[in-house]
Amino acid sequence: MDPITALLDDVLDEIAPQDAGAPADYIPELAAADTDRLAFAVVGPHGRVRAVGDDAAEFTIQSISKPFVLALALQELGRERVLARVGVEPSGEPFNAISLEMGTGRPANPMINAGAIAVSSLVPGGDVDERTARIVETLSAFAGRSLWVDEAVYASESATGDRNRALAHLLRSHGVLEGEVETAVEAYFRQCSLLVTVRDLAVMAATLAFGGVNPLTRRRVIDERVARDVLSIMGSCGMYDFSGEWMLRVGLPAKSGVSGGLLAVAPSQFGVAAFSPRLDTHGNSVRSVLVVEELAERFGMHMLESHESVAVPAVALETVEGGRVVRLGGELGFAGTERVVAILRGMGDELPPGATVTVDATGLGAAHPGAVVALQAEFETMPEGFVLLV
Amino acid sequence: MDPITALLDDVLDEIAPQDAGAPADYIPELAAADTDRLAFAVVGPHGRVRAVGDDAAEFTIQSISKPFVLALALQELGRERVLARVGVEPSGEPFNAISLEMGTGRPANPMINAGAIAVSSLVPGGDVDERTARIVETLSAFAGRSLWVDEAVYASESATGDRNRALAHLLRSHGVLEGEVETAVEAYFRQCSLLVTVRDLAVMAATLAFGGVNPLTRRRVIDERVARDVLSIMGSCGMYDFSGEWMLRVGLPAKSGVSGGLLAVAPSQFGVAAFSPRLDTHGNSVRSVLVVEELAERFGMHMLESHESVAVPAVALETVEGGRVVRLGGELGFAGTERVVAILRGMGDELPPGATVTVDATGLGAAHPGAVVALQAEFETMPEGFVLLV
Amino acid sequence: MDPITALLDDVLDEIAPQDAGAPADYIPELAAADTDRLAFAVVGPHGRVRAVGDDAAEFTIQSISKPFVLALALQELGRERVLARVGVEPSGEPFNAISLEMGTGRPANPMINAGAIAVSSLVPGGDVDERTARIVETLSAFAGRSLWVDEAVYASESATGDRNRALAHLLRSHGVLEGEVETAVEAYFRQCSLLVTVRDLAVMAATLAFGGVNPLTRRRVIDERVARDVLSIMGSCGMYDFSGEWMLRVGLPAKSGVSGGLLAVAPSQFGVAAFSPRLDTHGNSVRSVLVVEELAERFGMHMLESHESVAVPAVALETVEGGRVVRLGGELGFAGTERVVAILRGMGDELPPGATVTVDATGLGAAHPGAVVALQAEFETMPEGFVLLV
Amino acid sequence: MDPITALLDDVLDEIAPQDAGAPADYIPELAAADTDRLAFAVVGPHGRVRAVGDDAAEFTIQSISKPFVLALALQELGRERVLARVGVEPSGEPFNAISLEMGTGRPANPMINAGAIAVSSLVPGGDVDERTARIVETLSAFAGRSLWVDEAVYASESATGDRNRALAHLLRSHGVLEGEVETAVEAYFRQCSLLVTVRDLAVMAATLAFGGVNPLTRRRVIDERVARDVLSIMGSCGMYDFSGEWMLRVGLPAKSGVSGGLLAVAPSQFGVAAFSPRLDTHGNSVRSVLVVEELAERFGMHMLESHESVAVPAVALETVEGGRVVRLGGELGFAGTERVVAILRGMGDELPPGATVTVDATGLGAAHPGAVVALQAEFETMPEGFVLLV
Repeated sequence: MDPITALLDDVLDEIAPQDAGAPADYIPELAAADTDRLAFAVVGPHGRVRAVGDDAAEFTIQSISKPFVLALALQELGRERVLARVGVEPSGEPFNAISLEMGTGRPANPMINAGAIAVSSLVPGGDVDERTARIVETLSAFAGRSLWVDEAVYASESATGDRNRALAHLLRSHGVLEGEVETAVEAYFRQCSLLVTVRDLAVMAATLAFGGVNPLTRRRVIDERVARDVLSIMGSCGMYDFSGEWMLRVGLPAKSGVSGGLLAVAPSQFGVAAFSPRLDTHGNSVRSVLVVEELAERFGMHMLESHESVAVPAVALETVEGGRVVRLGGELGFAGTERVVAILRGMGDELPPGATVTVDATGLGAAHPGAVVALQAEFETMPEGFVLLV
Repeated sequence: MDPITALLDDVLDEIAPQDAGAPADYIPELAAADTDRLAFAVVGPHGRVRAVGDDAAEFTIQSISKPFVLALALQELGRERVLARVGVEPSGEPFNAISLEMGTGRPANPMINAGAIAVSSLVPGGDVDERTARIVETLSAFAGRSLWVDEAVYASESATGDRNRALAHLLRSHGVLEGEVETAVEAYFRQCSLLVTVRDLAVMAATLAFGGVNPLTRRRVIDERVARDVLSIMGSCGMYDFSGEWMLRVGLPAKSGVSGGLLAVAPSQFGVAAFSPRLDTHGNSVRSVLVVEELAERFGMHMLESHESVAVPAVALETVEGGRVVRLGGELGFAGTERVVAILRGMGDELPPGATVTVDATGLGAAHPGAVVALQAEFETMPEGFVLLV
Repeated sequence: MDPITALLDDVLDEIAPQDAGAPADYIPELAAADTDRLAFAVVGPHGRVRAVGDDAAEFTIQSISKPFVLALALQELGRERVLARVGVEPSGEPFNAISLEMGTGRPANPMINAGAIAVSSLVPGGDVDERTARIVETLSAFAGRSLWVDEAVYASESATGDRNRALAHLLRSHGVLEGEVETAVEAYFRQCSLLVTVRDLAVMAATLAFGGVNPLTRRRVIDERVARDVLSIMGSCGMYDFSGEWMLRVGLPAKSGVSGGLLAVAPSQFGVAAFSPRLDTHGNSVRSVLVVEELAERFGMHMLESHESVAVPAVALETVEGGRVVRLGGELGFAGTERVVAILRGMGDELPPGATVTVDATGLGAAHPGAVVALQAEFETMPEGFVLLV
Repeated sequence: MDPITALLDDVLDEIAPQDAGAPADYIPELAAADTDRLAFAVVGPHGRVRAVGDDAAEFTIQSISKPFVLALALQELGRERVLARVGVEPSGEPFNAISLEMGTGRPANPMINAGAIAVSSLVPGGDVDERTARIVETLSAFAGRSLWVDEAVYASESATGDRNRALAHLLRSHGVLEGEVETAVEAYFRQCSLLVTVRDLAVMAATLAFGGVNPLTRRRVIDERVARDVLSIMGSCGMYDFSGEWMLRVGLPAKSGVSGGLLAVAPSQFGVAAFSPRLDTHGNSVRSVLVVEELAERFGMHMLESHESVAVPAVALETVEGGRVVRLGGELGFAGTERVVAILRGMGDELPPGATVTVDATGLGAAHPGAVVALQAEFETMPEGFVLLV
């Protein structure tokens, strides 16, 4: 076991004894889950999957499919057409709430069932099979392997799916649902019945973390802007009526499902997923929540935590003939330009006549467009002898 | 005008012609606002205030006081005691919604009026004057200068404050309000009537951005953890029933007020504030929203955008006698350890016998605790000759 | 034209010029209604139908079917089994509101669509045809002639019935709906598509007015207790979110439908119906409401108006040999016993020795059981010589 | 004990063993009630009070004051001005629900607290004492004796009345409350703290039953139309979220209070009141509900029960020289005209030439205006020889 995996294992051991909650019981297949199962996986930028616990255990993806089908719809139709059918506001209500906007009939957001069904109905496809195929193909691209529908769970969901059918008919009565109710709900039931492991979910999360590129397959699945939109909506609404508290405690966009899965995304850092079937009253897996919270705590991943030097470039100074070279490395953000300029102005005071200062920004790992603009603007007011290479 | 200020001026010019919306009219003082006013300010880590437009115009802080009084309550009482009185879930409802939790009577969150009044009632102070003094002192520390109450606005708010008194009585009937209704609402009306400029708000935002330390005065106003909590709640609930769309479009924790002010926080980067009295139907300033959105777009500040090299350290290699030195700069996050280890392992393959590789992490601007742990763990499995300096 | 019909005609003339409102537009067949149509009919205890205006115009019964299908369910299953599936509380909400009781999922009452669908699903019948047949048979018995489904309207309702299907699925998800959703909603759409005239509706109303006996056919359609229950529920909930104001202004149990029909019941007095397609914002026909209100006003039919002599018997005194005979006629209620006893006691004071007073109650049209008990009880304390014939 | 009182005693004995429920506990004075107390009174048209059980026990009137203060407001200001401030729709919600109409802020109806406070604020009176005096005077006129405020209960209600103050402030913020909040709520707390017995309540109910004339004092307290309006609103909303079921089971307008009182009105028949402190979950007295239900059942008082001869006149035929006299007695309603006309037409067929039929309607106890109009209209079409005396 490699050292980082050992760290994960340590987190798992700490959380394992928790036995609160109960598995979902709305269909017999979920109620029959082995409630002792616990698994946990992390995927970083190079696509290496580190997993501990019952990481080969398969379970149905359920609501965790929602952000990925949303990604598909956004990619195909654009933000505007999707938002014409569904809002992005948290409703403060449970996953199966009706929560339709007065007047328009738009569901509050794509993370509650009503919104997810509306979004699913937007996926191109003339019939259930065609649409399902398209969804499975996309989620498989996110996961980096071919996913399959658990036909027994699907049949059970379809047989007991009165509430979701009700939501679909309500949507259709408001003109929010595309096509027939049956096509929409059957495709939706199938998307929820896809079998995954925590390894799959962690890769899917990582694909969102790295701007839509699957770090395992190196394939771009969706555009960077779509990934950002999906993460924003997960950040606001991903954990149902626990979303605000999750933001407070963990601070990472996340999505949970009633089968006990949970994934969270640290943008540009990693994707993480956990699995444990016992749920709390919000419908979130008790131990999955704890595992992700602990990991975020240990790795300082809360996205609203301040870090002194985020996006401040590394600066290396070299004295060369005829002056100095300032090499910028790392990332240059808005805050960083202030630091760089302060250093340069200090150098300007002691610069011998005729000497030059060359600022080499070509080695920057990344720079915000605004930061570069700001730096260039600063250079226009610098004394003679300062040169910027970008 | 310095170059960055010029940039802000450019953003202001772009937005200025927008004339949609109307000033708040619930008290005559607000309705009488000069609706043409527009101002904008940004404050970075060194506390330099860059401001454009009517940056000296004073206006009452109104709801923008809420996160700062929340910060005061969290600092004094701790998270647990505050959350016993108020939730942290977005309600999907307007600022003056009743939204009390069934059973407990807790307001949904501290950003709606009911929640803000409950929080304000927790501030230590035996009477209105004592409590107000404590609030003014704290908000002044956030702003870096002494703030004053606009007595005319205060008198007007108090005279017409039936809805807020109603909320306070409801809270008291549920045992959620501390002390007397009059003490609570009068202190609340005073906190809302504090006069600020965009410069003040930008400094206040920056104090949250930099972990609770005012970048102007260098004074710590609140603990880092409190700043994170406040930003988390602003992220979920700061823009009322527009919070989800704001997260989608801008991606920064923010808070608006009915007098037309708006502040937003890019953690570790900057605080920003805008002012323009005309409001949209959500009660947010039309032009302030656009200004902050445009700024975030130009500087790539959406917190859910992935950046290839965020928290990947700059790596400088030097060949020295007897081996090599790897100098790490910038920030080391979890994702970064993976990159460093990959480089080191590559070097290990080509390392001459007896040579050493010294990894110098002492130059890191910052490192997540988990990242350091991960790096140390990796070193235990490295071949002989690798030395880590931390 | 007989004199009473002339009276009705006069009411009609008074209301005819009103042209506010618009016909329902949720299905094209209703939107295409001839909006000038206006009709009005009254049926008294002898079954004579007096009708004026477009009294031969047929229209679909729509929601006016609800109390009659409720009557059928109550008759077949009893009050308890019906109330296990549907409440009897007004919801203060529109006809198509969801209004399900927390926990049980029972619709608020049988007059909103959700409740009517639940009730309709209780009607015995293995499939749509069987159940529809049973419903048509009952409503025909109420109307005194065979009613027919308008197949075009039915097809249109079924094709656009997403909201009602949504309600049915919701009910089924709570275990409140009997059988399959399709069976329930198709039978419901058929019941709403029955063609009636105002003459039919007035006879149906009269059947409820006279305790379940159709005054035209003299056939008992339902039990007296069922009629009372249906009228009670119409009284509370029959006019949707206008029910309270209707009770205030008119004071008669009533039911309206979106095709413009309206019926009201003056218990033991008459049934009345009106028809005019233009609806107000509550979904009630503007002119039908006015017509019935005017009629109730002219005939003093508000059921909460006090009438000095309601249920006070007519008393006829005869002097006979050896004493007097007091003949009671009309109706004897509780209040009436007090009057009778007062008269008798007055007579007792002047009664010659040996004379008798015979109180002949055999000619009473009706007497409340309690009134008879009270009278008998009084007799036990009367002086000698008083004889009660019952 | 007179025979009717004995009947009441019998009802009381039947219900007495019921011990479900608990007294209200929101103020200590109510919680301390002697829960065994049970009383019951009936008042008929002659003002005789028949009472059984603890009929001398005093308790505070609480919400039962609402219909009487409403009567006062309607009498003083007229229906239109009162309805501008409060609706008449049942809300399907508990007594302390907020239930304000969107847009106008009108409370749903005058029987919930918010509506009752709004109505109370309409009572003329410049300060609390003046307004209270006016209310006490009116309620005393309804009761037929001077009522007094229980100062301990009043003080307790005022001290703990945060929820009602909240409602009042909300109303004021919508411009629905007249004057100051404190004036309104203090007068309201005093009206609720009036001490009554079941005897008082029964007289008050009887005053409504007999069109606004107190049957004890023979004084007119309010107009007949106001009595009808108050009864209509009680019929729709008097029993909170149990109003629909009460209409189904009992069928009489009624009002309950948290101290355990309940009154009901059988228009033109009697007023009834009961008292027993233990309440059900709707806030209605368990045994008071049962007592009134039983009484209504025994006396057949459900107002939606059909009675064959209600408002059918007693008809006495006399053969006189030159023809016949038809004497009408009792009450003539619309339905009755049909019967009379049928008899007359039958006589017409056998009438000897030259003979007359005199219809003597002067002995009618009462006749609906419309019925007389109908009868006169019929006479215009009768053969010669028919004479109508009215």
